[in-house]
Amino acid sequence: MRDTIGNNNSDLTEMNRSAVVKILQQREVCSRADIAKQMGLTQASITKIVAALMEMGIVSEVGIMKGNGNRRSIGLKLNTDMHQIIGVKFARHMFGVGVFDISGKIYTQTETEYSIDEDHQSVIAAMKKQIYDMLDQYKNVVAIGLAVPGPYLKDDGHIAVITQMPAWHDINFIEEFKDEFNKPLYIVHDANAGALAEWWFGDHERPIHTLAYFLVGEGVGSGIIENGNLLLGVQGAASEIGHISIDFQGLRCECGNYGCLELYCSAQAMLKKARQHVPECLSESYPKSIEACNVVFEAARGGNQKALEIVKEVAEYIGYGCVTLINAYNPDIIVIGDSVSQGGDLLLPTIMEVVKQRTIPELCDRVQIKISSLKVDPTLYGAAAIATDKVVRMPSAFLAVEK
Amino acid sequence: MRDTIGNNNSDLTEMNRSAVVKILQQREVCSRADIAKQMGLTQASITKIVAALMEMGIVSEVGIMKGNGNRRSIGLKLNTDMHQIIGVKFARHMFGVGVFDISGKIYTQTETEYSIDEDHQSVIAAMKKQIYDMLDQYKNVVAIGLAVPGPYLKDDGHIAVITQMPAWHDINFIEEFKDEFNKPLYIVHDANAGALAEWWFGDHERPIHTLAYFLVGEGVGSGIIENGNLLLGVQGAASEIGHISIDFQGLRCECGNYGCLELYCSAQAMLKKARQHVPECLSESYPKSIEACNVVFEAARGGNQKALEIVKEVAEYIGYGCVTLINAYNPDIIVIGDSVSQGGDLLLPTIMEVVKQRTIPELCDRVQIKISSLKVDPTLYGAAAIATDKVVRMPSAFLAVEK
Repeated sequence: MRDTIGNNNSDLTEMNRSAVVKILQQREVCSRADIAKQMGLTQASITKIVAALMEMGIVSEVGIMKGNGNRRSIGLKLNTDMHQIIGVKFARHMFGVGVFDISGKIYTQTETEYSIDEDHQSVIAAMKKQIYDMLDQYKNVVAIGLAVPGPYLKDDGHIAVITQMPAWHDINFIEEFKDEFNKPLYIVHDANAGALAEWWFGDHERPIHTLAYFLVGEGVGSGIIENGNLLLGVQGAASEIGHISIDFQGLRCECGNYGCLELYCSAQAMLKKARQHVPECLSESYPKSIEACNVVFEAARGGNQKALEIVKEVAEYIGYGCVTLINAYNPDIIVIGDSVSQGGDLLLPTIMEVVKQRTIPELCDRVQIKISSLKVDPTLYGAAAIATDKVVRMPSAFLAVEK
Repeated sequence: MRDTIGNNNSDLTEMNRSAVVKILQQREVCSRADIAKQMGLTQASITKIVAALMEMGIVSEVGIMKGNGNRRSIGLKLNTDMHQIIGVKFARHMFGVGVFDISGKIYTQTETEYSIDEDHQSVIAAMKKQIYDMLDQYKNVVAIGLAVPGPYLKDDGHIAVITQMPAWHDINFIEEFKDEFNKPLYIVHDANAGALAEWWFGDHERPIHTLAYFLVGEGVGSGIIENGNLLLGVQGAASEIGHISIDFQGLRCECGNYGCLELYCSAQAMLKKARQHVPECLSESYPKSIEACNVVFEAARGGNQKALEIVKEVAEYIGYGCVTLINAYNPDIIVIGDSVSQGGDLLLPTIMEVVKQRTIPELCDRVQIKISSLKVDPTLYGAAAIATDKVVRMPSAFLAVEK
């Protein structure tokens, strides 16, 4: 769609085509009558829109389906395999590359570890090589999504603060990646990626009005989607829950603030607590906080009292984070994801208790809090979701198949 | 506009008419060419849209204006006096009623005080009577807006927590007001009202991407507008900055949370501090915290050291609130309003210092922080703004003048 205030007829057509694609993306098979009902348009209008989408190779008919009152109608589906998406996750210690289609189906994924001291240019070169390899192998890629740690400044192209890896602050991701592959490429920060993954591919009851994805991993962040749109702020740095203070007299964070939530419940914070209280569980060869989390969760499941205490403490802080998310965004669903959430069943009871105790009852009753159950890493999946989100908004531009 | 996913041609027409009205609302006088340029549509399309708006009595021609390159063109303006709006502010201790037009011009306003112990029904009856009186006097009223303290639950129609006045929790504002006056009536909480007032009528450089209105009065709250839309959350209770904790081990708030910002920098909090540290400034007859604020600010301006300390402390807490707003919403502008902001010049230096110290430099550099300079109470003005915002989205339905 054109980036203007006014809308002309072709904008209208594209909006409606996009709405049809989104419905099919969510429902797999659908009749024209179903779509007409859901969109509030006449069946004649839908028939016209669908004809254009079929002509472009975006939609196909798939035989007869039974509708209401035993009426038979023709089923429609998206030609998802014709529209693949590459998702790329760049994180501390590792990057991942995956190939998906616009329905969220995964074709392949790789993970590559690197040392935090490694030269940036060689890490970036390795990422690019893997993306080129995927493009060689998968010929129907229509767009690429890249997820990076936040707060990511969307117009400047760089990360404002990346704890533990300050040198990456100067990398301009737009310059490095935007025009590299001759495919539209979209960049989003990791928590927003997770939110998009949950919005597009998560197994939730719908419709959802306001979704909060609460990333609790090496960093802590959140992504908010209201009415289908990411809350971005002017620079794309909104919803930085990890840098909202829970104690104005707390320890200083690298971002400048004091008592940031990230200092209390990130994987790093868990590693510190583990070193202090259950050093016997950590072998010398645990340099990474993600693994430390799993070790603590395992020890807690085995009944280790000190490990249980660490888990309870971290769960309380995650609970405070949920209370802040509720007061800040009033979501109907909070999905907790990333490495710390691996301790889901151990964490949830305490989180729920804190939320119940500290939130206005009407808001508490309305919000559902759950651990992410996506089969794919939400950040990698979300990198694919940001590209999916963009291309289905402009189906004629991005999804039309050359004949 | 119809509340559906699909859009038909009449939706498109209405969107474009609304966009033209919004441009004229902001710019006073404008040519068709200016509008075409700003909307990204052809001049022929604009001529057609304007013709319809003129036919409906919404827009008039106002003679010749000079454009670029000395070309002369016909100026257009909104017939603002044909479209009046009643704004109603309901607050602790007082309510206000005002008549405005859709350009924000004020025609009249009244303020009525009541005791916090007064029976609700008599307060509501008094509000209704004043609204009826205004409707008798002003014949061009097209809609009514009502602002109430937050967190207000938009579908349930009641206030989830109203500190100091718990009995008002059970009043259903939708049932009481919605169908009373035979005019469309819109209800919004006070901080969202303030945000709309600043968005529509504030004297700021535009365009604004994300505006945060920070209400610091008897309660503390915020309203966020991103891309022209209020951030609401699923129940309308988003952006409750007053109940976001700044100290998870702090005092308990009526909302259930501990260490809520509202406990530290509301007018109530200032009154408490004043009673403790400058009791000599408070006469027995200061029951209201709003007046206590002004007394403290006056004493501080007069050089009273203890009053200056209170002001500095409150400013620091407001600063922490701004840091949270920046991390939560990444606004390009924060406007501080309501009673505590009366101490604007005394507060701002400390607020700015705290923000500078505690925010990521790139975000800090981007945000402008100012004290509201609206000539009318932002909450009352905002009550008018919510109704204005709704009617200009549907000009054919609400603004067409009967002939």
